[in-house]
Order: sequence, then structure tokens, then C-alpha cells
Amino acid sequence: MLARSLKARLESSIPAAYGRLAAFMGKSRALVGARLDDARARRRFWERVLEGPIAEMVLAHNEPAAEAALASEIEREAGGGQIAPLGEVYLVGAGPGDPDLLTFRALRLMQKADVVLYDRLVSPGVLDLARREAERIYVGKRRNDHTLPQEEIGELLVRLAREGKRVLRLKGGDPFIFGRGGEEIERLADEKIPFQVCPGITAAVACSAYAGIPLTHRDHAQACVFVTGHGKDGPVDLDWATLIRPGQTVAIYMGLGHIDELARAFVAHGADPELPAAIVDNGARANQRVVVGTLATIAEQARAAALRGPTIIIVGAVVALRDKLNWYAPTPALAEEDVSDAGVREETQPGERRGE
Amino acid sequence: MLARSLKARLESSIPAAYGRLAAFMGKSRALVGARLDDARARRRFWERVLEGPIAEMVLAHNEPAAEAALASEIEREAGGGQIAPLGEVYLVGAGPGDPDLLTFRALRLMQKADVVLYDRLVSPGVLDLARREAERIYVGKRRNDHTLPQEEIGELLVRLAREGKRVLRLKGGDPFIFGRGGEEIERLADEKIPFQVCPGITAAVACSAYAGIPLTHRDHAQACVFVTGHGKDGPVDLDWATLIRPGQTVAIYMGLGHIDELARAFVAHGADPELPAAIVDNGARANQRVVVGTLATIAEQARAAALRGPTIIIVGAVVALRDKLNWYAPTPALAEEDVSDAGVREETQPGERRGE
Repeated sequence: MLARSLKARLESSIPAAYGRLAAFMGKSRALVGARLDDARARRRFWERVLEGPIAEMVLAHNEPAAEAALASEIEREAGGGQIAPLGEVYLVGAGPGDPDLLTFRALRLMQKADVVLYDRLVSPGVLDLARREAERIYVGKRRNDHTLPQEEIGELLVRLAREGKRVLRLKGGDPFIFGRGGEEIERLADEKIPFQVCPGITAAVACSAYAGIPLTHRDHAQACVFVTGHGKDGPVDLDWATLIRPGQTVAIYMGLGHIDELARAFVAHGADPELPAAIVDNGARANQRVVVGTLATIAEQARAAALRGPTIIIVGAVVALRDKLNWYAPTPALAEEDVSDAGVREETQPGERRGE
Repeated sequence: MLARSLKARLESSIPAAYGRLAAFMGKSRALVGARLDDARARRRFWERVLEGPIAEMVLAHNEPAAEAALASEIEREAGGGQIAPLGEVYLVGAGPGDPDLLTFRALRLMQKADVVLYDRLVSPGVLDLARREAERIYVGKRRNDHTLPQEEIGELLVRLAREGKRVLRLKGGDPFIFGRGGEEIERLADEKIPFQVCPGITAAVACSAYAGIPLTHRDHAQACVFVTGHGKDGPVDLDWATLIRPGQTVAIYMGLGHIDELARAFVAHGADPELPAAIVDNGARANQRVVVGTLATIAEQARAAALRGPTIIIVGAVVALRDKLNWYAPTPALAEEDVSDAGVREETQPGERRGE
């Protein structure tokens, strides 16, 4: 019964883009038929098209490029020549970790990959959905270990694409928000390697939804700011004058390690110590935990809760809305990872102990 | 062949959450069997569970609530009583418009809806994916027409949920970033109506990916700010001191109507008139157009290009990266909507005319 219900759901979920692909194939049929006599050759040819970058170009709305590539593939095939491999890189945002929050486009690109480069913030559940045969390479960044590998990741992307591979560069969240995705594809652009970018649900947005804390709100925040709390050698030198303005929400990525300095700096630069602040730990995952306090208390609370991250710190009046808007109550028993918070009270269910 | 390729892709795309649902059903089987003798009654019962809020609770990692609800449903069924309808609201971010950028979770909730409330920013392609039988209600906000309907939307959500309906509140982008989603669910919380929130790809993130303009970049922007350019009666009173800071990217939602005032105000408050600025019109859609200039030129360029929106305006040094990182070249002929830009030069393909 579950299988039947699932099947009905899947059948309704065919991405609309495939209609375009079918139309493209229909339009190109005469051309292919005219150049390739043999039915088997035609079938092989279409199989390659469907699995390769030409289909991808159509799905990405780039039909002129697809037509040009198809024409040149036909000529190569008709001439009996070898098909030169056409490597490509997909820079894909994997979202906050729950595979349910992947986009269809992300999954489609993941299913085409010959090789996957992923880092620490990509969850095992998401990684499992990459093409089964794809080689997986961990290029994972730990904190304080950013600088060196970045260059090597660029090298690796270039080399793999030059070998004709479809390379999936999978990043937690969105690749253009503190993902350094821009730097990686700059390198590809320099080397004239084709690439595509697929956005993902960035951590601040995911944490906002799953913690019941709207990032903007007519009465409380007309703007939101995303910053990173982590620099090369300690907390980054943030633009405090900007961050302490009223009427906005600040979401801090990678700030847990410097939560003391961050909270103190807010207050030192003029923010109200009573300004609400929350830390969302493992946001949008089954082991999500949320600690709510104020600038004055949040660092101590984070320590008491022994949070491990990844986290998003949210500072602003909107945090107070969580009291009303919290809807997500994951079951610790179902958590994919062990959460060691023995004895710590958790804000979600006052008076209850979790993870025990 | 396309169908076969599609099927293989779909089969690999079953959201991981369904494993949890199967486990939950297995665990509850004995309980149901003990209370419901009749095989037909059991089957009917499970069908309702799979289609209703209990399955949804499991998929949302809220197993304690699911267990409690299941137990009370079993008792009702065993007692021969009527099943009281349990209404619920799903506040779902529909992303930028391309159905390919929906998340699996969004689609799943869309497939459960009895009724859909949507507004102007939800594309027809996305709306088509809501459950076929669902009633569709347009509650669309036009510019300058925000205030009154908002209250009525809240009323409607409450009334429909009270009738026992599964109500989908579908919003373009993400519901918590300038979507006023927070206000709508506050109302639901007041009325004790259950709700869930599903994040979406917000417009600034989508436009960033599809325009090749990273919102953050180690060399150019350590922060990004999202603001709205549209207030009740003209441009909102933005916090200019915050926005003109160097080292950050500003993404302005709903700013096209006030682009003159906005660009002038940036400069009047001290920003460099030569600071790069871009307008992404219909971002991440087949009719995407991008106009790139500076604070000094962008308003005039927007006029010349006769942009109609929806748009995201991006201001900051990262805009210059588009020269290198632009990868998305949609085909105007495939655009779902007519773009009336007769005679206008477009930055993507210099010297070419589009939409003619």
C-alpha cells in the first residue's frame, strides 16, 4: 500500500523540464535520421544524448548550445569518428542535509555524475542519492583548515573535467552563500570548462523555517543580513556598526566556535544585551536543537547545551516569534547522529530532558 | 527511450523519509491489528493514515505526535465513531518559478492539498503540480494592494482548516523572506491550527545562481543583505548607512518600481556611483534577462530594457564576476511568457536583439 501511494506520488512529480527534452528530441529526429542510417547507431546515439551534456543543456533552457552540440555529435558519429568526451562541472547546493529538501534539479544533476566531490557539510543521506556508480571524493573542509585544500579542489575539478568526466561539486546549503563556489567556478571559467550552478536551500533559510523564526517580519525586521562568524584565525572582523542596527535580522554562519566573542561584540558596539538570540544546531535535521536566549545569555547557554554544530546563530527581535511559531518537534530517537547532550535542558520542551 | 530514462531517474529519487514511514507502519501494525478485527476496516484505516496528517507528522520527524494521533484514530475507528477531520496548513516556498527548483518536500505537501491559496509570484508550471483535485484560490497580491487582503487571507486559512481541509499556502521564493508567511502562521497559532513550514529557494539565491553573481566571495563580499525596495506608499525607508558599507552584497526585492530613487539614494548616502549593479528580471526562468551597469547607469538601463519584473536588484563588487561566471543562456523562444522588449539590447548577448 505504501508502495502504491508512493508510486502515485512519483508519477505526478516528473519535472516539467522533461517536456522540453521530448520536444527537442522530436525536433531533431529528422536531422539524426538523415545522417545516421543504421537503427542501432541511432539508438546508441540517442542514449548518449540523453545521458550526456546535450540533454543537460536542453533542461537548462540553453537550446542553441544543445542544437550546436547535437549537430557536431551527429557529424562525428556519421563520420565514424570517436566521440570526444565533453567534461562538465555541476556546482550544486545540497541544502541543509535532509534529502527531502533537495531540489529536483539538484537530484537530476547528482544522477548524472561520474564523480562527486563533497565536503563535511553534505549529509550521508544526500550523498547516497548521487549516481550509484559515481566515484566519491571527500575534499572536506574542517574548521581552521580552509586555505590549502581550496587550490587543490580547483585543480582536481579541472583535471577530472578534462578527462571528460561529469563532475558533481556538491556543497551543503547554497554554493554561493559562504560556500566559496564562486572561487571554484572562476577557476573553471579561466580554463574554459563548462559548468552549471544549481542553487540550494541555504542554512539560514532552512533554520528559519524549521525553528519557526521568520527572517523578515513586517513588525520586527525589514531586512536580513547573512555573515560568517569564522575567519582564518578566529572570528572575522565583522562590520559591527552595520550589524547592530534595529529592524533587521542577523544570521551568522559558522559562529559557534566564537560565540563568546560574537555576543560580547554585539553588546560592546551598542546592541541591547536583552536582544533575543537563538542558536539552531543541526537545523532542519532530525537531531535539530534550538537554544533561545539573549545576547547576554546565549554563549553560556551554548556551552551548557554542548552544541556541536553545524549551527546558525540568529540575532534579532524575530527570535521571540519562535514561542508561537515553533512547529517542528523532531524525535531524538530517530536522529541519524548521536547527540551528546546528556542532562541538558532544551528550550523546545521546557522541563523535559532530551537525548537521554 | 525518454520514458525509460525518466523511470530510472525517478526510481532513484524516492525521498529517504519514506523509509521512516514504512518503519512507523511496521511498528504500529500490532496495535492496529489488536483493535481492528476486520481486514477491510484495517485497509481503509491505513489508507486514511497514509493520506492524512499522521503520515505527514512521521515524515516531518514528529513521531510522538504521530503515535498519539494514531492511537486516538484507532480508538475512534474501533468505537465506530466518525473520524473528526483534522485540518492543517502547509506554508510552502515555491522557489523562483521553475518547477525543477521545487524541493521534494514542497512537492509532497502540494500533492496532499485539498485546497491551494497562491499569489502572483507562483508560476503556472508550479501550480500545475499541486494535487489535481485541489481547489485553487488566487489571493494574489499586486503592488500597492498589500494591506487589505492580508487579513482576509488569514481568515480564509483559518476557516478552511477548521473545515478539516489540508490547506496549501503556496508562496513564491521562501515564505519567511519578504513573504509575510510569519504573519499568516501567527494567526494560525493564535487559533491553534496545526501548520508546517517548508522553505524554498528565495529569489536572491536563485538569481545569484542563474546570473553567475555569487552573493558572497572571499575577495569581494563577506556579508549579504536582503532588503525590500517596496513599502506601502513608495520606496521603504531603508537604513542607508548599513547598505552602503563596503565588503557586502545588497539584494533588493521588489525594487524595480523605485529603481531611480534607490540608485540615487545609494549615491547620496556615499556609495561610489561606479559601484556595479545588476537587475535580474524573471530570474532562473526561461525568460530571464539580466541588465548590468553601475549605480549611476542602472535606472536608465532598466527603463531602456523595459523590464517588467519580478526582479532582484544586486548591488556590490560581486556583480563584476558575472562577466566570467555567467553560464545560463536561456532560449527566448522557449520563454513561457511574452517578453516585450522590442529593440532593446540585452547585456547577455551584446549586439543581439531579443524577444523579436
